[in-house]
Order: sequence, then structure tokens, then C-alpha cells
Amino acid sequence: MRINENYRALKESYLFSDIAKRVQDYSGKHPDAKIIKMGIGDVTLPLPEVTVAAMRAAAEEMGKAETFRGYGPEQGYDFLRESIVGYYADRGVSLELNEVFVSDGAKSDLGNMLDLFNSDNTALIPDPVYPVYVDTNIMAGRKVLFMDANEGNGFLPQPDWSVDTDIIYLCSPNNPTGAVYDKNGLSAWVDYAIHKGAVILFDAAYEAFISDPALPHSIYQIPGAKECAIEVCSFSKFAGFTGTRCGYTVVPKSLCGGELNRMWLRRQTTKFNGVSYIIQRGAAAALTPSGRVQCMENLNYYKENARIIAGALKRLSIWYTGGKDSPYIWMRCPNGAKSWDFFDLLLNEINVVGTPGAGFGKNGEGFFRLTAFGKRESTVEAMERIVKLLG
Amino acid sequence: MRINENYRALKESYLFSDIAKRVQDYSGKHPDAKIIKMGIGDVTLPLPEVTVAAMRAAAEEMGKAETFRGYGPEQGYDFLRESIVGYYADRGVSLELNEVFVSDGAKSDLGNMLDLFNSDNTALIPDPVYPVYVDTNIMAGRKVLFMDANEGNGFLPQPDWSVDTDIIYLCSPNNPTGAVYDKNGLSAWVDYAIHKGAVILFDAAYEAFISDPALPHSIYQIPGAKECAIEVCSFSKFAGFTGTRCGYTVVPKSLCGGELNRMWLRRQTTKFNGVSYIIQRGAAAALTPSGRVQCMENLNYYKENARIIAGALKRLSIWYTGGKDSPYIWMRCPNGAKSWDFFDLLLNEINVVGTPGAGFGKNGEGFFRLTAFGKRESTVEAMERIVKLLG
Repeated sequence: MRINENYRALKESYLFSDIAKRVQDYSGKHPDAKIIKMGIGDVTLPLPEVTVAAMRAAAEEMGKAETFRGYGPEQGYDFLRESIVGYYADRGVSLELNEVFVSDGAKSDLGNMLDLFNSDNTALIPDPVYPVYVDTNIMAGRKVLFMDANEGNGFLPQPDWSVDTDIIYLCSPNNPTGAVYDKNGLSAWVDYAIHKGAVILFDAAYEAFISDPALPHSIYQIPGAKECAIEVCSFSKFAGFTGTRCGYTVVPKSLCGGELNRMWLRRQTTKFNGVSYIIQRGAAAALTPSGRVQCMENLNYYKENARIIAGALKRLSIWYTGGKDSPYIWMRCPNGAKSWDFFDLLLNEINVVGTPGAGFGKNGEGFFRLTAFGKRESTVEAMERIVKLLG
Repeated sequence: MRINENYRALKESYLFSDIAKRVQDYSGKHPDAKIIKMGIGDVTLPLPEVTVAAMRAAAEEMGKAETFRGYGPEQGYDFLRESIVGYYADRGVSLELNEVFVSDGAKSDLGNMLDLFNSDNTALIPDPVYPVYVDTNIMAGRKVLFMDANEGNGFLPQPDWSVDTDIIYLCSPNNPTGAVYDKNGLSAWVDYAIHKGAVILFDAAYEAFISDPALPHSIYQIPGAKECAIEVCSFSKFAGFTGTRCGYTVVPKSLCGGELNRMWLRRQTTKFNGVSYIIQRGAAAALTPSGRVQCMENLNYYKENARIIAGALKRLSIWYTGGKDSPYIWMRCPNGAKSWDFFDLLLNEINVVGTPGAGFGKNGEGFFRLTAFGKRESTVEAMERIVKLLG
């Protein structure tokens, strides 16, 4: 047996372990320091009540002979797919039920989706980047091209028509930069993809943070996108499901004459057995009117944190992206500092922990990520300390 | 963009849709017929009470700030991995915690595991077969060799040392034949795999049906297996989790000097985000002492059904495998009948539905599968009808 040699080309990321080590070292020397963590990329508020009630009830159903359910449809129960179709309809996007595939999360779908593409395709990926886009392509031996996201383009790169590619990754609102494409920005990508015969993998995991009515939540709000884009989304941020696990992917039937939709169905029915009935009931509850209200309460809490962070940076005249329509704030390190030096400064001087931008790719050097998932009082205090230090 | 052309080599299976169509046609013409379905491959009894209680409690935890959990470890929570290690220890198999990977089911792991192997490897697969083994290899363009399972070898093929291969599929207790390897049978495969430098993918999904203390539940009960085998297992049959979704895979660290264990960890951390905390609590509850008692009650119900089916075939002097240590009974069609002719005979004459063996591969022709997942009274009545028809 020969292993898949492509795995040997993967680089190890030490970003979060390096951060943990530096924080641990500091804590060891300063046991009384009140460290505030602003690097967390995970939700912290409990699940909305309606989702808990729905999952409790579904667990009960599974314990009774009359309501027990065995294998469900691999692509998700109709009750949940109908709710997702409704969620899109509210934004003017019309989907068919069998264009929606329920899964255990966006990360699984982003990885598994590559099954459908030839390994001699080229992937075009922004830098800085969510490392999963890169690693999943390297595992298949695919060539990766990077596009520069930087201060010049507001960390929202536009297509370079001189570059040929097959698979294009776009994430908006972006992780790690918080930048959000407007309709013109996405339209340019749709035009480019159609011209090049490429497929866009659109990661909409953070769409629920968008408040500005002019900004698209879904790439399908752009004419032509159904001919060139697959959209991956999740209940992780919308409903706080990072530990509960449910996501979905839209594969339009107008993409490659329906072939990718048929292939994904075949992939999922062959290598997947669907999401737990209990969890699907929880996800569907999040999409009911009362579920949406409860999810929005949690989202508004994080969004207010983001507003507080962004407001402080504005007062300091520090350049940043995100902070609005996103839980992430991507700031330029003051005085031309490098990412890790600024990390050390914040940790050592004011006991605030963020994420060095350099950890997300070469264009992240000189930048720093703060997140809005913390407690309100910690967020307020961290920003007061930052203003005092840099003001 | 070019698609993965290997998908075009997949054959469509019409087995279960053909069965459904014939049953529907018959029902249309005979609306009063009391049809008994003995083809079902899914559990039917409700979940054990302890698993329901654990999942309800876990859902509640997720709804409270003090006990909420976000992202969990991709490879599963320690509380569940420790329970699985304990389950193996009871059979004398010693595993390390980080040799166990929790997943959403055996089907996902069987498909995703192939990521780790070069696509120029050859897979050796028994015929008749669970179609997923074949299709997942065809999707990667891998060459598939079949080994004959037949009446001569009791549907338990032994290695042919003149054949070279890289990946070997073994399923015991077997789906669809119900045949179970003894220790000698598996030892021969372990010897062969080590000699050929091949990896065995051992599907133990039905291990909980084994009653005979002489039969191995795990391939790791065979000396040398940790040097050549990956074992995939599931809560689907043990705890009735087909719709609840939890499984696990063991990748020993002594396999390829630990490389496959490290690669699988890398695969899962890159393309998977772990199983829902709620579901993992349910699975762990199934492995507690009271959970095991409740799971065994359900298993005993199915096993008694299997005993009833096997007893009737014995009285009819019909050759079969399974029926003991398995929920499946694989019978020779009487009077040299072909699988589909026997299907039609049972449907039309006595309104009993089973699964034609020919649907599982060429060696299934002339055989027929009955399953023990039905209700007791239906199982008894179906076998009375069969005895009356064939006796």
C-alpha cells in the first residue's frame, strides 16, 4: 500500500499553539494578570431556547416506538431543506429543494466538495486565508495560486483576468479580515468565473452578521451566480451551532448542466449518511420566526462588541476592515509594527490577547485580528486598555 | 474547471428502487394484501432510554451559559473515546485514546479514509458486497479486484496468495450474508496483509450481534492486526443510532510507523469539525453499564427474530448463512431459482418482501436476504407463510 504522498506537502500551522504558549509563559510569570482573550473564533453565548426545546423534543421522539426514526435522507430532511429554501427566498433568492444539501458543517462540505473536481485543476485562494481552503487542495495534489488581499484593495481582491484558474475561493464576510464584498465586487467575480469556465466556492458562513441592506448575504443575489457558484453556509454562527454541528451547501442545477448537483448527491449518498434527526430539528427551529428573533438577539450582542472595538480603533485613527457586518476586526498594527511584535506588546503591556495577522498568510504581516465573540464587559475593558496604551 | 471523471465510471444501483416499484405495483393491484417487509436493513426499535435522557440533558447544557460548549475536538470528546477504549478493553483489546476517532458514522469514515491512500493502489473487495466499498474506490479511480464469496467457502473468502493488493475490505459479521469469520479465518487475512504490505479496512458495524464467545468482535483480537488493520465501527446497530449518527474508527499507531494515525488526524482536523456534543453524550450513555443492558435488550429482540427465521429455513432444509451472530439471513433460493424469480414468488404468492441477492454482486445470484429488524409478530407470520409455501 502506498499512502497519498500529497499529505507530505502539508505545512503544519503553529499559529494557535504559539499563541497559547506565549500566553501560558506570561501567565506563569504573572499569575495575577487579568488576561482578556480577543482572539477567540468561536461563539460563546448559549443556544437559543427554541433550538434546545426542539432538540429535547426530537430526542424524546427517538425514544418512542411511534415516532422513532432510523436512516434519514442523506441530503437532509425536507422540513429543514424547506426552511433553508425559505431563508433564501426572504432575500429574493429562489432555490429548488434538491439544490440544498444539509451537512454536519461548512468545513466538511468545503473539504468533501473537492471530490467532484479533477486533481489537475488549479485553485485560486486569497491571502490572508482560512487555512482549510489551502490544505484541502494540497491533500489532493492540486496547484494553488494566491491572490493578494491587502490594504490597497481593502482586503477584497478583484479578479486578474490575466490569471487562469478552475476553482475560486471567496469568503464574505471574510475570515480573518471581516471585509465584505458589495454587489459590484461579487459581480466582477461572477463575470470572471463564467468567462474562465471556473467554479466559485462561496463561503457564506458569516452572512448572518450582515446588517447593511445593500450588501449581499448570498452570491446568488448576483445575476449569473447560479451558473458558476456553489455556496457553503452554516448554522455555526447564525444559531451558535459550532458544537452542535449543522450546515448546508447549495449546488445549483444550472451549474454544468446539473452535473455537479448530481455528482454531489452521489458523493453524499455514498460517503455520508445524513445529519442526526435531533440536530436537524434544532436547526429548523432556528429558522422559525421565533428562532430567528432569538438568534438575532445573540448576533446583536456580538455585533455590539464589534461596534465597540471598531469605535475605539476609529478614535485612535487606526486603519481596519470589518467590525461592521462581521464578528472580526482586522487592524493595521500601529507604527508599522510586525504582527507578532504587536501581539507581544498587547500581551505584556495590557494583558490583551489577539491573533497575529501573519499567521493567516504573507499579506497578514503587519496586521492583527480582534474578535467580537467575548463577553461585553471584557470587550469594553480590553478596548479601554488599548486606547490608553496607544492613544 | 474539469470534473472528477471517475464519477462517470460509477454504476447506478436500482436494487432498492426496483424492489419498491415491484411492491408498489403489487399493492396497486391487491390493495388488501398484508405485505410483510423482510428486506429492511435499518433498526426499528426506539432508542434506549439512557441515551435519550443523556441527549436531553446535553441539549439543556447547551442552552445554559455555564455549560454551553462551542467547537469540540475533531477526533471526539475524551469522555466518549475513554468509553470506547473501555468497550474494547472488555474484549482484551488495549487501545490508546488517540487511536480512536469519533465520527458521524461508519459510512463517512469508510469513504473519507480513502483520502489517505494513493489512487494507484488496488482494492480487494468481496462479492457479494456492501456497494459503498466499490463506489468509493471507483470515485478515486482506484482499480478494484473482487474475491469470490460463495457457498463453497461459506461466503467467507480466504486470501489467494497469488493475488497482490493494497487495500483489503473485510466485513464481519457480513452485510449482506450474515457470515462471521472465526479467529483462524481472520488470522489468515492478517498474515496475508502483513506479507503483502496491504491495509485491511475492517468493517465491524455488526459486531454487537455476536453471541458466540469464540468469535472475534474486533480484528484486534487477532495477533498482528494492529500492524495491518484499520477498524471502522458504529453505534448504528449497537445502540439503534442509524438516524442519530455516531460511529468511530480505530487507526493503530503501530500501523505504518504511526503515519496513518497522524494522516487521519490531519484529515479529520482539516475536513471535519467533530460530532455534535449532544450526540456524543448519547453515544457515551449507550456504553455505560445500564446503557449496555438496554442496548442488549433491543439486540436480543432482533436476535430472536433471526433465530426464528433461521429455524424455519432449517426445518425446510434450505442452506443459509447468518441468522446467528448477525441480523441477516442469506438463503439459497429453493429449486435453483434465480434471486429475482424467488423475489416475485414470495411477493406474489405469500406477500413477503426480501432482497434479491443478485443485487449485491454476481455471486449473489441464486441467493436471497432476509433481515431480523422487523416486528416479532410479522417475522413469525412471514416465516409461517414461507414454510407453508415451500414445505
